[in-house]
Amino acid sequence: MPDTPLLGLVALPVPAYVFELIGVAIFSVTGVLAVVRRDLDMFGALMLGMVTAVGGGTLRDLMIRAPIFWFNDFNYVWAAVFGALAAFWLAAYLKNTLRPLLYLDALGAALFTIAAASKVLTMGYAGPIAVLMGVLTGIGGGLIRDVLAGRQTLLMSRDIYATPILFGCTIFVLLRGMTETFGYAGFAGVVVIFTVRAAAIHWHLQMPAWLTHRA
Amino acid sequence: MPDTPLLGLVALPVPAYVFELIGVAIFSVTGVLAVVRRDLDMFGALMLGMVTAVGGGTLRDLMIRAPIFWFNDFNYVWAAVFGALAAFWLAAYLKNTLRPLLYLDALGAALFTIAAASKVLTMGYAGPIAVLMGVLTGIGGGLIRDVLAGRQTLLMSRDIYATPILFGCTIFVLLRGMTETFGYAGFAGVVVIFTVRAAAIHWHLQMPAWLTHRA
Amino acid sequence: MPDTPLLGLVALPVPAYVFELIGVAIFSVTGVLAVVRRDLDMFGALMLGMVTAVGGGTLRDLMIRAPIFWFNDFNYVWAAVFGALAAFWLAAYLKNTLRPLLYLDALGAALFTIAAASKVLTMGYAGPIAVLMGVLTGIGGGLIRDVLAGRQTLLMSRDIYATPILFGCTIFVLLRGMTETFGYAGFAGVVVIFTVRAAAIHWHLQMPAWLTHRA
Repeated sequence: MPDTPLLGLVALPVPAYVFELIGVAIFSVTGVLAVVRRDLDMFGALMLGMVTAVGGGTLRDLMIRAPIFWFNDFNYVWAAVFGALAAFWLAAYLKNTLRPLLYLDALGAALFTIAAASKVLTMGYAGPIAVLMGVLTGIGGGLIRDVLAGRQTLLMSRDIYATPILFGCTIFVLLRGMTETFGYAGFAGVVVIFTVRAAAIHWHLQMPAWLTHRA
Repeated sequence: MPDTPLLGLVALPVPAYVFELIGVAIFSVTGVLAVVRRDLDMFGALMLGMVTAVGGGTLRDLMIRAPIFWFNDFNYVWAAVFGALAAFWLAAYLKNTLRPLLYLDALGAALFTIAAASKVLTMGYAGPIAVLMGVLTGIGGGLIRDVLAGRQTLLMSRDIYATPILFGCTIFVLLRGMTETFGYAGFAGVVVIFTVRAAAIHWHLQMPAWLTHRA
Repeated sequence: MPDTPLLGLVALPVPAYVFELIGVAIFSVTGVLAVVRRDLDMFGALMLGMVTAVGGGTLRDLMIRAPIFWFNDFNYVWAAVFGALAAFWLAAYLKNTLRPLLYLDALGAALFTIAAASKVLTMGYAGPIAVLMGVLTGIGGGLIRDVLAGRQTLLMSRDIYATPILFGCTIFVLLRGMTETFGYAGFAGVVVIFTVRAAAIHWHLQMPAWLTHRA
């Protein structure tokens, strides 16, 4: 799901690639912390962390008929393995620091979603397909993890997780169609996704009642 | 999952394409009505409706290595989006008219299943593969939706949904092998699937006890 | 998931292909017996048996961009159909002989896992990818079945099923990198997987507590 050009936006002395790997590891950590519970063994944690971190991008690559991104660079998987093992062994401590991790998770989701949509556009697919593939990359891994862990998926909850991803990804694709340069559109998409999600975490926001089905 | 040749059978003044889009929208409507409940938000309904309507055909295209059908014509997705939003907002009213919708859903499943099997045969795959891909197209979307919604899948119930699809699709492929022309085989397959399913809806039929495991 | 070269190891008068088909049928039998319960109808059993037997190999072929193995030889599917129907009709009797079947299932999983890893290496993929694809082939079908049947997946239990597969597959890939010949590496991998799994079945072993998360 990572895509160097986007993360190249971040002008820092450390290469963007390092941030990508940290992002994958964080996805894996939050993925394992979400499902860790009595009787989960290390192998289960490892698989669920990996699926959370690279599952969405894998589905996307299958659908757009691209080589699976971690087949070309296995470091993404090692980052997920590292994150999953860290989360498994340090779960008792990390659960107390889950909130800071959620913000990092939101930033990772924003970056990966926009990077995925950009990759799909670059391959020549139309805008609406890029939006759907961006959303799939952002939420697909978490959906597979929840299904394998027997957990209610985020589609059946009122948590504000997928909606900002859809919203920000749409904004990115629309702006991208208007400007030749990548930078501003990508920046806008990432900021929208991260800001809305961070606000939802900070104020414990849920989807408003009028957008929710009532019995 | 739609395939123009089959639906070309229906000699009507309105183009077959319009019927295809209506079929996708109906799949999406019945897909959302099946899972709508307290706390489902609009985004969840949208995703679940889309998955129900185009998920089976997407899996089929991945397996037969064809381009995903809605990548070439995004109107199928718009039809699913329209159906999902309509079902979400009108759920209270539509639930009272669910039975008529079920008949339309059965007709859509019949048409899409046979169209899928026909597409797979045309690509040069053997008959048994065409049967399995037809069944996958007909029930795959509903299976993914049930899994994502945390619902018991149709594989674990005695509802007569998948069996007529398997049966009718087999008849189509067998007849197709005997005749050069597409028309009669396709018509027979659609009629078998729709008739058996419609009878099951009308008389509340379930799988007979001798075909069901008892404790 | 089967791959003739590996099973060619077994120097017996009966062709290896026969063993492959028996292995698929056994996967299907144990797959159905694991989920059979009141109200499962014959169609559901058929689909769940097929998914258990060929689902993992199908996922692997999609990811490594190989033609799906049972598209080229539908006998694998017929073997799965036969196993599923046998398990459905004879469930009452087979449940008493489940333990012997579990050992056969362990042998099948060992052979298919190593054959899959070998296939992936032969296609030129790197060692770690071969390990992951071997594990996916060995446990993927069971995971899909559990999800479709609404059962807790093996990832959330302390059963020792996936861990020996990961362990033996890693040993195979490491040894394979050191020797030019396939035989010893393959043999070692199969023996490790089967022995550990058989020991777990025999002594009812579970993952040790220090590798398991406690509340």
